[in-house]
Amino acid sequence: MNEATPGGEVTLADLPLRDDLRGRTPYGAPQLDVPIRLNTNENPYPPPPELVDDVAEAVRAEAASLHRYPDRDAVALRTDLADYLTVSTRVVLSEANVWAANGSNEILQQILQAFGGPGRTALGFEPSYSMHPIIATGTRTDWLPVPRRADFSLDTARAAEAVAERKPDIVFVTSPNNPTGGSIPLDQLRGVLDAAPGIVVVDEAYAEFSSQASAIELIAEYPAKLIVSRTMSKAFAFAGGRLGYLAAAPAMVDALQLVRLPYHLSKVTQAAARAALRHADATLASVHRLSAERDRVVEALLGLGFTPVPSDANFVLFGQFSDAPASWQSYLDHGVLIRDVGIEGHLRVTIGTPEENDAFLEASKEIKR
Amino acid sequence: MNEATPGGEVTLADLPLRDDLRGRTPYGAPQLDVPIRLNTNENPYPPPPELVDDVAEAVRAEAASLHRYPDRDAVALRTDLADYLTVSTRVVLSEANVWAANGSNEILQQILQAFGGPGRTALGFEPSYSMHPIIATGTRTDWLPVPRRADFSLDTARAAEAVAERKPDIVFVTSPNNPTGGSIPLDQLRGVLDAAPGIVVVDEAYAEFSSQASAIELIAEYPAKLIVSRTMSKAFAFAGGRLGYLAAAPAMVDALQLVRLPYHLSKVTQAAARAALRHADATLASVHRLSAERDRVVEALLGLGFTPVPSDANFVLFGQFSDAPASWQSYLDHGVLIRDVGIEGHLRVTIGTPEENDAFLEASKEIKR
Repeated sequence: MNEATPGGEVTLADLPLRDDLRGRTPYGAPQLDVPIRLNTNENPYPPPPELVDDVAEAVRAEAASLHRYPDRDAVALRTDLADYLTVSTRVVLSEANVWAANGSNEILQQILQAFGGPGRTALGFEPSYSMHPIIATGTRTDWLPVPRRADFSLDTARAAEAVAERKPDIVFVTSPNNPTGGSIPLDQLRGVLDAAPGIVVVDEAYAEFSSQASAIELIAEYPAKLIVSRTMSKAFAFAGGRLGYLAAAPAMVDALQLVRLPYHLSKVTQAAARAALRHADATLASVHRLSAERDRVVEALLGLGFTPVPSDANFVLFGQFSDAPASWQSYLDHGVLIRDVGIEGHLRVTIGTPEENDAFLEASKEIKR
Repeated sequence: MNEATPGGEVTLADLPLRDDLRGRTPYGAPQLDVPIRLNTNENPYPPPPELVDDVAEAVRAEAASLHRYPDRDAVALRTDLADYLTVSTRVVLSEANVWAANGSNEILQQILQAFGGPGRTALGFEPSYSMHPIIATGTRTDWLPVPRRADFSLDTARAAEAVAERKPDIVFVTSPNNPTGGSIPLDQLRGVLDAAPGIVVVDEAYAEFSSQASAIELIAEYPAKLIVSRTMSKAFAFAGGRLGYLAAAPAMVDALQLVRLPYHLSKVTQAAARAALRHADATLASVHRLSAERDRVVEALLGLGFTPVPSDANFVLFGQFSDAPASWQSYLDHGVLIRDVGIEGHLRVTIGTPEENDAFLEASKEIKR
């Protein structure tokens, strides 16, 4: 540190950090400048020019009143999200069923703040989205990991048993599951919901890519238990806009309003997300292309002797590597950034454009297993 | 609730909410459609057309890559904020000294997540910013309120004694203080810093309006203790953009990166805030106008027989009312929305445009005391 950095002589060890944070490193995939980035499950297709223009003009209209706080309840945005879900799931929702935040991580944090905390527990089926335990412990909610089958599928009968036995305050079910890709039929989800004494969060970040119906169909059946979380980051190609949301009974939304930071969603975010939703047909058209590419990549990986895990999402977990971190580096040396998600013998690749997938498959031929 | 609202029959009482949230209501001032809104300390001057245009075009440029996640560390924005602080405080800062989030509330929440939590305490001098205890308890940090003098000024010698005695993990000092308006000289702040065993957060949301030097000057002296939080909501007229930030030793920034949600700041927010910072000269020009208006309003209130509290911010707390909530309603009936901050006998008025202030003063002549 130079003299232009006051306090540069102090280190993290000098600070009165919470004990459980000591020695930790910040969460996040490496953000590297690599030609082919297939590591964070982004949609590879940039927004169409009409969407870009609509976002810019919507923000321009809002910018004239940036000196004023935004609508704290984001009613217009929530109405648009309810309309989108109504059309896509055929469950008629109103804005009272929907809540939104800066990314689904903030949605999950609010859920844990309202229903978790010290003395309470959250249970998840691992491997799954690694932010679930991180956000749980960040809110001092005890994390109860329950393993999936060796093939990463979820044995929902045993899952229901684990929930009945351990009685967690919150259960996370990720469908399709990240980073493994499989999704869960609604009738199997009912078993977990019936067993749960508290809240069940079905994390549907990748729902648009899934062959299964959305758990939103079950809200009327389990209004005091079920929260379905969603994101615009993946299918909507809006990762840079940071808009997560949920569907649930209106009382669930009331609960989150007790813990949300006031004015958490800026005017700019609300306007940009609404503009993006107006172009849902265009962005969601990529879903079919990506699903078809996913199936092609899986076939090609099988042909190369890999063992891809069946996926209902826009990524594929595949093995078998004797040293996955070394193979991850080897892909990177080939100009292809994929993800080491910490599952032994496996790596995860996001489905990109056909050209990106071809480059990934070409590199795969030369990677040490 | 109608049939278009699944789960509408369930109420908050049916949900397994955390016990300490039961019976609570969401924080926030009423967002009413009233001609004259002087209730949330917004800057009354809308952004100039050049700023609006720059925000729109900056967002347009970013929107083309909205399918990609934002820079997780917001380095360019933090660099711009460091440059602004360097110019305005004459303390040379680098981006390593600065952190940013969706409003200063998120900054404060991250501080409490890193340094507070169960078994830890945070102390504040009340009345002060009411989100401090709300965010503290939201992170399960025990809140220790210490009263200010009867005239709402801070007796810093007694404040230091209280800190030395109660040994809080975190101390909040708001300067200028919201909702009372007074600010604290640096030499008095040193007494509190010397007494504090842990972190001291100086909340400088209204710093640009203050006659006192910024606590940023003390970072080099107290690198392992001091965090100075700021916002673009007030002087920068950017309340709708939701951009809070802090200045501290780089290790403090490292600590917050352990608890921040990944990608918490969208591309849109980063771009819009950077655009607004490019027009700092224009927006900050309002500061002098508002300070002059504040002094005029205080004089006029004195002339009307009110007792305004001396203010170094863009608002004035004033009394004396026999029934402040009734008087608040009476102002509203006159088309003037001000704030009942829960201090007996007092109301808070934000300084608006000269016309708005005139309307407020006109109404004040007719309000029952």
